[in-house]
Formats: sequence, structure tokens, C-alpha cells
Amino acid sequence: MEIVIYLYNGITALDAVGPYEVLSRLPNANVKFVGETKGIIVSDSHFLKLVADYEISEIEKADILLIPGSVIGFLRETRKNNVKDWIKKIHQTTQWTVSVCTGSIILASTGILKGLKASSHWAVIHLLKDYGAIPALERFVREDKIITSQGVSAGIDMSLYLASQIGGVEQAKAYQLMIEYFPQPPLSYRSMEETSEETKLLARKLTEVRVKKDLSMFEMAKNFQSILKLRKGK
Amino acid sequence: MEIVIYLYNGITALDAVGPYEVLSRLPNANVKFVGETKGIIVSDSHFLKLVADYEISEIEKADILLIPGSVIGFLRETRKNNVKDWIKKIHQTTQWTVSVCTGSIILASTGILKGLKASSHWAVIHLLKDYGAIPALERFVREDKIITSQGVSAGIDMSLYLASQIGGVEQAKAYQLMIEYFPQPPLSYRSMEETSEETKLLARKLTEVRVKKDLSMFEMAKNFQSILKLRKGK
Repeated sequence: MEIVIYLYNGITALDAVGPYEVLSRLPNANVKFVGETKGIIVSDSHFLKLVADYEISEIEKADILLIPGSVIGFLRETRKNNVKDWIKKIHQTTQWTVSVCTGSIILASTGILKGLKASSHWAVIHLLKDYGAIPALERFVREDKIITSQGVSAGIDMSLYLASQIGGVEQAKAYQLMIEYFPQPPLSYRSMEETSEETKLLARKLTEVRVKKDLSMFEMAKNFQSILKLRKGK
Repeated sequence: MEIVIYLYNGITALDAVGPYEVLSRLPNANVKFVGETKGIIVSDSHFLKLVADYEISEIEKADILLIPGSVIGFLRETRKNNVKDWIKKIHQTTQWTVSVCTGSIILASTGILKGLKASSHWAVIHLLKDYGAIPALERFVREDKIITSQGVSAGIDMSLYLASQIGGVEQAKAYQLMIEYFPQPPLSYRSMEETSEETKLLARKLTEVRVKKDLSMFEMAKNFQSILKLRKGK
């Protein structure tokens, strides 16, 4: 079971690490962290760095391909033809192609999601329409072998579902027990529907802080003014 | 706000990355990933590698100290006097000292938890008693400035609580929205109480696979037979 997780600068680490923590427990799992080039990948906060042991030119196929999200980095990926061609090529070989958060925008930009329902992070899900996908704000959405999920932590739910499809419910329950995924969010605030406009506004403001940090640290601020505008929505 | 996350070989990555994803959003957060020595840290599965940008000799204080867990690596840490001395020293300076999963066993081994209630992963929580701590199988347990949490994913719940204590509930709600932490575990299996003996047995069997892989890849199998026995419980 070859599980390929694509890493790129600006990645939201939990988007990759949540699903990895579930899927790496599948029987005979071999998880490969793959970057455009090998080496250290800097996350969106710039505090956490992960290692890509492989580069895309070394990977020809996958049983599961996972594309994680990011706060702004995903828009850089949608402009890389070599990355998009690689995703399309690997997708031809997969049993499952899945994404977390804005990873679905990257998938959509390859044309894979044309005419299909797809989920993404609430703040940018409208961008899916630019690529002919149909935004569906659900925890995760399955279209045949493609599963797209909501933001960040939703990758854990999606991966448990995926694990149950691959190894059966009893295996998936054991993974859930191993990572003690019996969530008890402490703020008595349990759904998107309960979100006030104030909370949304604060979340957007805080996201912009992370976006600006990411842009400035990559010294790309000038080139990406257009992207910043895009990110703010229509 | 200096947030110090201790990394070590054998770490369960989600134990560190879950809380990081929440706490890195605190106002003026500066998150430092710190190893016994600097450089690449290999996780329990050996598939994922994280980077420790600092080493313990460079860190004198922290506002938040976080000790993540592992499947077997934690027992190696409990034998390192330099690491335990460092944890005790940093703990003197913290506003909060927190752990996820078996990180509480490391904390306990420093003497910090003596006489205090503490949580940990269900499979090894009995080990806390060896260090005079009182096992409490709760999602997370607060004792003044110390918070210990259950296994792996529980670090997300604990960190949201911690964020609410530091920055207030409205801030914490915004972080929750940013990472869309509105969990919907898909297996209709929502609490430890629902766990069958079969699921527990399978989880223990799968954990041993990971333990053995970790031990063999560190070529420490011989030295750590005693640890393997310890891990299996009393």
C-alpha cells in the first residue's frame, strides 16, 4: 500500500500529519513524503519544518495520493505545471486520490474535479468554481475514488473513513482507538452553524497575518499581490 | 509567548503537530521545536521526519513547554538525565507545562507530577504510578499550571482549552474555526466506553508492530527487551 503525501512550502502541517497518523497504520503501509524537490519543507507558520524524502520525479505511482492544504501556498502550486502534470499522472494510477482543506483547489486546478462535487476550507471554497468543480461544504465529499475534505482537522475524519473502506471498520476502529480520536472540543462550540460573524471576521484577520508572514518570508510579496486579492474572495 | 515543543526520535507526530496547529496562532507566538540535539527527528512510524531547529542547551526558558508522546521512544527519554534536568529547569520558568499522550510519563519521570493527577494514553497510563502520579483517564487533566492529556488527538482539545485560558474564549473559537475542528468521526464510535475487547486487542497488536519497527530501526532491540516488557503493562 503505497501512500504518497505531497509536501510543499507553506503547507498547513496538520493537513498532512492528521491523515498520515491514520493511514500509516494500514496493513503494509509505505508512506512517502514527496516534494517538488527533496529536502526540508517549511510550513505556513514557518515554525515547523517537515522532510520530503522523495521528489516528484522519483514517484511514478501511488495507491493513495494525498494533497494537503495551506493558507496561501496552494495558490503557488496551482501555477506549477510540472506539479500539476505529476498529480494528473499519479492520479491515473491511484486507488484513491484525496485532499484536505485547500488541497482540493490544487486538485481542481489539474482538471481532475471538473463537474464533481468537492469540499474545501470554508474561507476559500468558492475558488473551486473557477475550475469547474461544485463546492460542497461537507466534512468530506466522495466522488468515486476521489475524496476531498474540509479544513485542516477534517483530514482525520476523512482518513478514518478511507481506512474503513480499505481495511474494514474493525481495523479503522483500532486506529481510532490508537490515536484516541474521541474528540471533546472544550469550547462548547460544535459546528460551523454556531459560528458568529465576529468569530469568522477574527479568523479571517488571523489568517491574513499568517498569509502575510508566509508571503514576506518567501520574499514574494510583490509577485503575489494578485494572489492576496484572490484569497480574500469575491 | 515562547512556546517550546520538545521533539525526540520515536515521537508520535500528531502529538506535537495537533497542539502546534492551535498554539502557533496565539498572539505573538514564537514556537521553537527543540531536540536533545538539533536536526532531523524521526517519528515512530519512521516515515515522517520533523526538524528540531534548536537543541536543549540553547533553551533557558519557555512560556509554554509541551512534551509530546510516542509509542516506545518516551521510555528512552525517561532514561536521559540531561533531558530530564532540562525539563525540570524549563518547568521552573513556564506559565504552562503540558503533555500529550505518553509525554506525561516523561514529565512524571522528572518528578514534576508527584502526588498529582495526570492523564496519558490508555495503554500505558498505569506507568504514571511508578513515579508517584495519580492516573486519571480523562481527555485532559489540569493541576495548576500543568495539563496532561490523553493519547495523540487529545492534544488538540487540550490546546484549545489552553488557548482559551491564555487568549480568551473568543480567540480560541477563531482558532477552532481556522482549523475547522468540528469533528465528525465517521465510524459511529464515539467514546472509550464503547471500545470492545477485540478492538483493544487489535490496537495493542498493531501498536506492538510499530514498537518493534521503532526498536529494530534504532538497532536497540537487545537493550530494550526490558522496555518492551514494561510497555506491555503489569
